[in-house]
Amino acid sequence: MTSLLLISSSTVHGGGYLDHVETELKEFLSGIPEILFVPYALHDRDGYAAKARERFSRLDIAVKSLHAARDPLDAIGGAGAIFVGGGNTFRLLKTLGDLRLRRPLRKRVLEGALYIGSSAGTNLACPTIRTTNDMPIVSPSSLAALKLVPFQINAHYLDPDPGSTHKGETREERIRQLHEEPENREPVVGLRENVWLLRRGASLLLKGPAEAGARLFRPGREPNEYGAGADLSFLLRETAKM
Amino acid sequence: MTSLLLISSSTVHGGGYLDHVETELKEFLSGIPEILFVPYALHDRDGYAAKARERFSRLDIAVKSLHAARDPLDAIGGAGAIFVGGGNTFRLLKTLGDLRLRRPLRKRVLEGALYIGSSAGTNLACPTIRTTNDMPIVSPSSLAALKLVPFQINAHYLDPDPGSTHKGETREERIRQLHEEPENREPVVGLRENVWLLRRGASLLLKGPAEAGARLFRPGREPNEYGAGADLSFLLRETAKM
Repeated sequence: MTSLLLISSSTVHGGGYLDHVETELKEFLSGIPEILFVPYALHDRDGYAAKARERFSRLDIAVKSLHAARDPLDAIGGAGAIFVGGGNTFRLLKTLGDLRLRRPLRKRVLEGALYIGSSAGTNLACPTIRTTNDMPIVSPSSLAALKLVPFQINAHYLDPDPGSTHKGETREERIRQLHEEPENREPVVGLRENVWLLRRGASLLLKGPAEAGARLFRPGREPNEYGAGADLSFLLRETAKM
Repeated sequence: MTSLLLISSSTVHGGGYLDHVETELKEFLSGIPEILFVPYALHDRDGYAAKARERFSRLDIAVKSLHAARDPLDAIGGAGAIFVGGGNTFRLLKTLGDLRLRRPLRKRVLEGALYIGSSAGTNLACPTIRTTNDMPIVSPSSLAALKLVPFQINAHYLDPDPGSTHKGETREERIRQLHEEPENREPVVGLRENVWLLRRGASLLLKGPAEAGARLFRPGREPNEYGAGADLSFLLRETAKM
């Protein structure tokens, strides 16, 4: 069974690292003694691994970092749970591609390893990283990602600010531009910072605080709003089968 | 002589299309009866060309749109001035690549055709489009751009908002991430929305209202602020020669 916890943002306003998902993490990782951490979205891999290690130690979970593994393929093959941290999505994808670890990661998750993604790690779970907000600081050979879900996610989704004087495109305008391109048919879930998606096999739930939610964009349709608690399992069925 | 007018944003708060650069456009295009418009950053090319045509008609300048030219290479070869409009930079670059027009455009500008870029069109003038803010809605075969200047520009540059509760990276953090990658050595000029760059051969000026400015980022150094009117010609010399 494919089990995914896809978090929009590693922190939310006023909280510490992964604090807002602590209860969910405990439940999702219940019985798991160790996770494999993928630090490649940030430049300082040692520092990032130390940060993750400290955070998960408070849940009594050990952290092994992929960048420090003697045999990365072995580490992936033996992982019961994988956590891909946030940062720059282009850097993350390019590094996995250069190290030839993208397919092994995908395979391991489809075999049943639990997958946690946050921000860039959540983008990575999509068919491509075309809905990232990040700057293309490096060029992966392709934007194809892990395809652990058949739709796209826009993490850190941000509603237009009616008071803004800035003239850059709003997030909604950017996603509409994506769907103007005939090759982009996948729905896009705009995940606001305080929500996350929980996939267990054929079930997909939107979770978070009661007042929170997500916005769903599909080509040629008006966007739809879904509140925390919504069952989005239809998104696993309505697009190309996995 | 290479002549470039590189505009951060096609509009600024409270104004209409290209209003804030109207005086500069008149001067830059003085004596030019017609410009060649490159509409590929937006999906609706006809609509975009009509918008540009209306705007430049008020300056008594005709607009020919590249997408409607019977022979695009001929249109580029005969252009006295080229205007590349804003939109999605990935789409712009991919379209130029697919149509094999990137090199001819560059050649024509280096031969002396005036070049005006706005937003995505300004990104396009850089060595690569790695400092775009846009979503990677399509995949150009490479991020290499026109290299009409030897440095990078971040258009719509935005200062961190101390009141923000959003947890996505600030623009400055994104540019710092770019410079963490050893392959990215070019300085980055963060052009706030109300300023523009004017290049005339070896001279490069930052222009705009008196209170405006730009922020310059270089690898391993603290950023520097420059006010409108600043002479940035050193940026044409300090990096790899053109």
